[in-house]
Amino acid sequence: MTSALETLLSEGPVFERGHVWLVGAGPGDPGLLTVHAIRSMEQADVVVFDALVDSRILGLVREDAIQIFAGKRGGKPSAAQGDITAKLIEWAGNGHRVLRLKGGDPFVFGRGGEECAALVASGVPFRVVPGVTSALAALVAARIPLTMRGVNQGVFIATGHGAGQSPAPDSIDWQAVARLGQPIVLYMAMSTLGYIREHLISGGMPSNTPAAIIVSATMPEERILVSTLAQIVEDARRAKLSPPAIVAFGDIVLSRDALIGAAEMALASAGLDDVAE
Amino acid sequence: MTSALETLLSEGPVFERGHVWLVGAGPGDPGLLTVHAIRSMEQADVVVFDALVDSRILGLVREDAIQIFAGKRGGKPSAAQGDITAKLIEWAGNGHRVLRLKGGDPFVFGRGGEECAALVASGVPFRVVPGVTSALAALVAARIPLTMRGVNQGVFIATGHGAGQSPAPDSIDWQAVARLGQPIVLYMAMSTLGYIREHLISGGMPSNTPAAIIVSATMPEERILVSTLAQIVEDARRAKLSPPAIVAFGDIVLSRDALIGAAEMALASAGLDDVAE
Repeated sequence: MTSALETLLSEGPVFERGHVWLVGAGPGDPGLLTVHAIRSMEQADVVVFDALVDSRILGLVREDAIQIFAGKRGGKPSAAQGDITAKLIEWAGNGHRVLRLKGGDPFVFGRGGEECAALVASGVPFRVVPGVTSALAALVAARIPLTMRGVNQGVFIATGHGAGQSPAPDSIDWQAVARLGQPIVLYMAMSTLGYIREHLISGGMPSNTPAAIIVSATMPEERILVSTLAQIVEDARRAKLSPPAIVAFGDIVLSRDALIGAAEMALASAGLDDVAE
Repeated sequence: MTSALETLLSEGPVFERGHVWLVGAGPGDPGLLTVHAIRSMEQADVVVFDALVDSRILGLVREDAIQIFAGKRGGKPSAAQGDITAKLIEWAGNGHRVLRLKGGDPFVFGRGGEECAALVASGVPFRVVPGVTSALAALVAARIPLTMRGVNQGVFIATGHGAGQSPAPDSIDWQAVARLGQPIVLYMAMSTLGYIREHLISGGMPSNTPAAIIVSATMPEERILVSTLAQIVEDARRAKLSPPAIVAFGDIVLSRDALIGAAEMALASAGLDDVAE
């Protein structure tokens, strides 16, 4: 342990009693936790965590801290959002240091904004700590750069959750997305991939557009599938892929070929690989 | 220092001689470094770093490590990309542990993909470690959720660098972006903001669309400006804002009002504030 790191850990913000911290726990690998996240886990009296927070990460929480599961995962029963925020406010009101530990980054498809708004409305002081969002970790795991010079200057990032549902007050015009001509990276899209594919193709995206699915990025069970827009649904079914997963469409997926070595390519040619780093 | 963190730091991947690690150093605050990033700094023999890597972070590098500045910053002279990758390959070939430390995340507008491709082509073994990308840290600093239920399910993220230049082989159709009706978050857009505004408005984005600029997020000199699409260029000039900055357009900026407390709102009403957390 360097003294510089010890200084860093001792100098960070103090987690005060009666405060809530919304902290991004990153994609799963405890090595992708931030210093602030680790400090928050060392100090918190109460930890309210999501299904996507890995058990290896919860091992860093203070042993005498109260741990509350507020799990949500696509398609499975989940704690009601109102109940979660009510708990945060109640524990903080009782003078506890309350850590709301969220997978990835708290402001990216994590309902962190809603939780913050509820805390403000209740006058509970809070802090938000960003984290490594799952999409970026997934792309790094698959050696697919989010942006690549000569390939793209932008990317459309979205959730597939609720795609095609009606009424969908904040739905996405997938045909307009297709017409952008930029890569697409999706969270929570496994169950709506057929709908999204159909609308991207009818919007003009070529059916041979390269596609990839990264399941459980940075976790022991990580899997990577490379396919095309036309085949992605069937290939995912054949490979028995299930959430949590990140889906990518576009020529950035092709960059992967230049970013992995020969040994990894042999695995990749089987259509499904485990990218050894 | 908890024993759990010590275990984490001791158990991670070993930085082998002759390897290159491309590591995201996050947005600036050393507290947003990941455990893997810290371990890489403790082990590296040679560190090649960008202009956006904060001096507080470089203080964590091994004292006897060779530090090489490969700075790039908008509008200022920069090391040629070819020279940087040649250095990485040369040092690794000499048996050094070479750390390529990049601001934010290495695969987000950081040319990390190109550097990886050069390493693969030269047969140099490497690892990529994701980081907290600057845009997410900037939005957290400004209390603007990237996604907010009832507001948006997606976001277009891009670099403004090169916008409007000709020839621009991988340019963005900003009018098509406007027609998406989703929020926009931009890196490196300060010098092309006038061009981008003009094309977003002609593409149909309302000129009163909320806008924000976050300068030097998580750094001591952090500044936040809230404006509108119509006024953003003039407001930024008046406030003398300069890069590095993240720009956001869309109704997610409005969510900020519900996510900051009364004291902070008073500051914000001056048009330019420092968000105290």
